[in-house]
Amino acid sequence: MEADPQQRVRLDISYDGTQFSGWARQPGRRTVQAVLEDALTTVLRLPAAPLRVAGRTDTGVHATGQVAHLDLPRSVWADGRDLLLRRLAGVLPPDVRVRAVRAVPAEFDARFAALWRRYVYRITDATAGPDPLRRGFVLAWPRRLDDQGMAQAAAGLIGLHDFAAFCRRRDGATTIRSLQQLTVVRAGDELTCTVVADAFCHSMVRSLIGALIGVGEGRRVPDWPASLLTLDRRSDDIRVAAAHGLTLVEVGYPPDDELAARARQTMARRDGVS
Amino acid sequence: MEADPQQRVRLDISYDGTQFSGWARQPGRRTVQAVLEDALTTVLRLPAAPLRVAGRTDTGVHATGQVAHLDLPRSVWADGRDLLLRRLAGVLPPDVRVRAVRAVPAEFDARFAALWRRYVYRITDATAGPDPLRRGFVLAWPRRLDDQGMAQAAAGLIGLHDFAAFCRRRDGATTIRSLQQLTVVRAGDELTCTVVADAFCHSMVRSLIGALIGVGEGRRVPDWPASLLTLDRRSDDIRVAAAHGLTLVEVGYPPDDELAARARQTMARRDGVS
Repeated sequence: MEADPQQRVRLDISYDGTQFSGWARQPGRRTVQAVLEDALTTVLRLPAAPLRVAGRTDTGVHATGQVAHLDLPRSVWADGRDLLLRRLAGVLPPDVRVRAVRAVPAEFDARFAALWRRYVYRITDATAGPDPLRRGFVLAWPRRLDDQGMAQAAAGLIGLHDFAAFCRRRDGATTIRSLQQLTVVRAGDELTCTVVADAFCHSMVRSLIGALIGVGEGRRVPDWPASLLTLDRRSDDIRVAAAHGLTLVEVGYPPDDELAARARQTMARRDGVS
Repeated sequence: MEADPQQRVRLDISYDGTQFSGWARQPGRRTVQAVLEDALTTVLRLPAAPLRVAGRTDTGVHATGQVAHLDLPRSVWADGRDLLLRRLAGVLPPDVRVRAVRAVPAEFDARFAALWRRYVYRITDATAGPDPLRRGFVLAWPRRLDDQGMAQAAAGLIGLHDFAAFCRRRDGATTIRSLQQLTVVRAGDELTCTVVADAFCHSMVRSLIGALIGVGEGRRVPDWPASLLTLDRRSDDIRVAAAHGLTLVEVGYPPDDELAARARQTMARRDGVS
């Protein structure tokens, strides 16, 4: 008897990270991965539905553009995309949702095919405190922040660097990353910090933001964050910004028809990409 | 000894209505009015700080543009606006915030000087369910809604009418209202219904939306909501849409220098305006 051929499926996922211990499955914790995989096994009546994800977000971090993939028996996938979405909506708790599902080539890999990840970190320094309707997704800062200084500091970090000072070491992964965008834009009382890189080491986004806040509150000069790029280990001077201000908003991939060629290229440098 | 002269003060207020039993103070309930008045008496060290409000929102309704006023002894107000905002931010729970305070003429009245109130009602009919980050502020509808039909029905309700069919009777107030805007705009899976009137009778906004949803799901024809304007009492056929989709977003007032003249005009027709 031949095995049922597999169909690779991409899931686009949103979650409110407030009540989750991050993405990755951990015993005894409520995690996004566990909730999603359990919902998929229920809905699809499969013994397991292991997901690979683009960004393994930490406890309390949100996502509006998370991406994961899994392989399904073609007979299961053939039941239809809308039915799967609808059934998942009926089973998932309200703080996580699968926004879209689609068939992708077998070379699509949510983690290893990703070209870049975009995160947004939101801060308000309103005297009156944070907007009640968005308080779970915005860091409230009690004093006025110097957004100009923060933007200047951010510009100095762009490029291919060893971000060891901003990384929590984990499993010997590389800390060399290409930071493609780091901007700080004020609109009224709200600062929107946008961070794009090929990939991020552990706690890197929130360490970058923590360093920028140090500049914003005047504890540090704008040149300080870039000066840390010379370090070969984590700097204790960097505070990690609170998780609830951070949202994974988008992951970029090559077009489907370039995936096979790119998969061959990246096969060799898989290790250390997260 | 002369009494301390009074300064009328306007408060701009936001709240997440989820955990409140509406605006109006009620014994044994957590209401926005009670939480705010208690915070004001604490911060200002006054025996009482009674607020008059533009829109007495129901249980579960949110506000980003609520307006209230109160009269303070000038000596208390003189302590400074920013200090008051900062102190309130330190005392208020995170689901309500006073965004701004400012001195206004004695003729300013948050309720009776208001020219119009604008509410927004949000609905999503996404197959995948509501966005987790906004689920507390958007009604999730399980089937596709006909937004064109809803928009057509909405247009038929514009104007000066007796909205008795859409009102829960309360204290003999008039049900004649001038509905200035009622629009339904789809952006992707989200429908934004905007409602502007000089004032609203009890449950009127959510009854209007409930009637439009009847059209949107195909239970009713687009002419149906306007046909109810001939009724002189509440229609049992109208379902009141759920509170959590509704947000009071703005209240319009005349310029400060026109308030005195307008106050004289409106004095006579106070009764029944809510």
